[in-house]
Amino acid sequence: MRGVVMHKAGDVRVEEREDPKIVEPTDAIVKLTATCICGSDLWPYRGIEPADHTLMGHEYVGVVEEVGSDVTSVKPGDFVVGSFVISDNTCEICQAGFQSKCVHAEFVHAGIGTQAEKARIPLADGTLVATPGQPEPELIPALLAASDVLGTGWFAAVAAEAGPGKTVAVVGDGAVGLMAVLAAKQLGADRIIAMSRHPERQKLARHYGATDIVEERGEEGIAKIKELTGGLGAHSVIEAVGTQESFMQAVGATRGGGHLGYVGVNYDVTIPGIELFFAGIHTLGGPAPVRRFLPDLIRLIWDRTIDPGKVFDLTLPLEQAAEGYKAMDERRATKVLLTL
Amino acid sequence: MRGVVMHKAGDVRVEEREDPKIVEPTDAIVKLTATCICGSDLWPYRGIEPADHTLMGHEYVGVVEEVGSDVTSVKPGDFVVGSFVISDNTCEICQAGFQSKCVHAEFVHAGIGTQAEKARIPLADGTLVATPGQPEPELIPALLAASDVLGTGWFAAVAAEAGPGKTVAVVGDGAVGLMAVLAAKQLGADRIIAMSRHPERQKLARHYGATDIVEERGEEGIAKIKELTGGLGAHSVIEAVGTQESFMQAVGATRGGGHLGYVGVNYDVTIPGIELFFAGIHTLGGPAPVRRFLPDLIRLIWDRTIDPGKVFDLTLPLEQAAEGYKAMDERRATKVLLTL
Repeated sequence: MRGVVMHKAGDVRVEEREDPKIVEPTDAIVKLTATCICGSDLWPYRGIEPADHTLMGHEYVGVVEEVGSDVTSVKPGDFVVGSFVISDNTCEICQAGFQSKCVHAEFVHAGIGTQAEKARIPLADGTLVATPGQPEPELIPALLAASDVLGTGWFAAVAAEAGPGKTVAVVGDGAVGLMAVLAAKQLGADRIIAMSRHPERQKLARHYGATDIVEERGEEGIAKIKELTGGLGAHSVIEAVGTQESFMQAVGATRGGGHLGYVGVNYDVTIPGIELFFAGIHTLGGPAPVRRFLPDLIRLIWDRTIDPGKVFDLTLPLEQAAEGYKAMDERRATKVLLTL
Repeated sequence: MRGVVMHKAGDVRVEEREDPKIVEPTDAIVKLTATCICGSDLWPYRGIEPADHTLMGHEYVGVVEEVGSDVTSVKPGDFVVGSFVISDNTCEICQAGFQSKCVHAEFVHAGIGTQAEKARIPLADGTLVATPGQPEPELIPALLAASDVLGTGWFAAVAAEAGPGKTVAVVGDGAVGLMAVLAAKQLGADRIIAMSRHPERQKLARHYGATDIVEERGEEGIAKIKELTGGLGAHSVIEAVGTQESFMQAVGATRGGGHLGYVGVNYDVTIPGIELFFAGIHTLGGPAPVRRFLPDLIRLIWDRTIDPGKVFDLTLPLEQAAEGYKAMDERRATKVLLTL
């Protein structure tokens, strides 16, 4: 089959890779319908993380082709959406809703690589969720978004306790930030402040439910959020960038006793303990337990209640993956969908 | 009046200080019955924080002597317990239970100094809580503990979501750690693991409700907590030391999706963002909003349900404050009560 391999930083190729096969009785082979490029795929692309003939991709939707003998919840022919973290969905941690910390957790990006025609998904019962039927083609981007970027933005909004009566500030206007705006809106937040400098992304943020836009960053951004919230800061802040500056901006924008949800942190971020302490805030972060939200997200997409698919602003065939990476690296695209 | 002044690091004297007077109509003058020395008072004593003729002390109980014209909830003659942070108890932040982040918050240790015969307490209505009557002398230490060390340990346990069905690990066997054990027990935790190496403190931890003792620290301590919790880590972890090692030990001991409550952090603690991220945990920390808990804590003490007073293991007259600081600095005492 054809699949993406990153030979080294900046060197992305689509080449022949071995067809995946059932290894464990809990595996499923999924013939992918669409996949995409994640902001985090740019880390190895830019040399921030190592890349050495690495199989790329961790977001995926497709049709089950074959299942192992122990798989009971999905069957060949089912259209499925899967999380970017493998989970059994039965252990104590999964049952508490933290499937990304499952005792059997495994990252799809580490060895599976879904930027390809097919993928072997371990622990299929605990990782994949079937849609109610075969989706209309126009639903594919939205369902694909649920696999990571929507699920991650949703988790960020839940972690920040976005909801009725709350003012929510979203730091970051990338794909995850935009999905967090959508999630905050769905969760019933009163007011959603998107922190963004890009006119196109501001427009999309407003489409998804942002009520205010703040262009300032750092201390000025914090001051602006306070100005908009009677001097107190936002009840709920979502950090969707992951740099030192954005993280501390998010801490500073959260009111005392408020909630900060964060869903990505660069390796060089260090949090001064004393600043976090005197902020007096709740925090919750980590790789999103997308599996917790998948059934609800699929329903909202299926019912056309939400349209997260708009987050993809460039669609290319898998064979042109290298151009997709380039477009995202050069910020010509927010998020690239790869068709198969 | 007599009061403690720290001339410089290590130089504590009891000397004549000006009698406090009503300045604002919301003030109260409290004639102190007892006060004490806090672990945090050792920071300037050891030169970690500046000290230059600093008025010391922020924990206090006593009898109201005089009130300003706007004070309505306490009156002369009332026995009161106050928080170590001044709060109006009416602003939006206070109403959400985060009085230590009140829009009018002011630290008692910054300029008031309750290691003295009397103290002016601003925003008396929002800071002080009267007991149901004049307390029996044996209740004084317990009521004094509520002013900070018990209130702080209680907040840590609440922040860590200690409660029924939960295994709670407490990092630190100082006064706050011991009070957190007491709080976890009262909040209904199933299992309470005290991390302690001192036989006397282990004994007191067991008295307050610890079911297990772990002597190991750092990575070994984390491994031991995991061993005791089926490999998962504790549901609730309380950090009551405040060093780099203890903070990261607490992070590592918390299960994915679990809750970490922390109530003190040294100035040199830096948290690697990526470690906190991949831990996938909730955190809540900061100066404890003691005022939130004071009415409940006073009731539990008044009814003799809890006895936090045992945390004081040395009692001295105010005039011997210097000896109290020395005893705590040399770890000959966990916490020193000063009588008046």
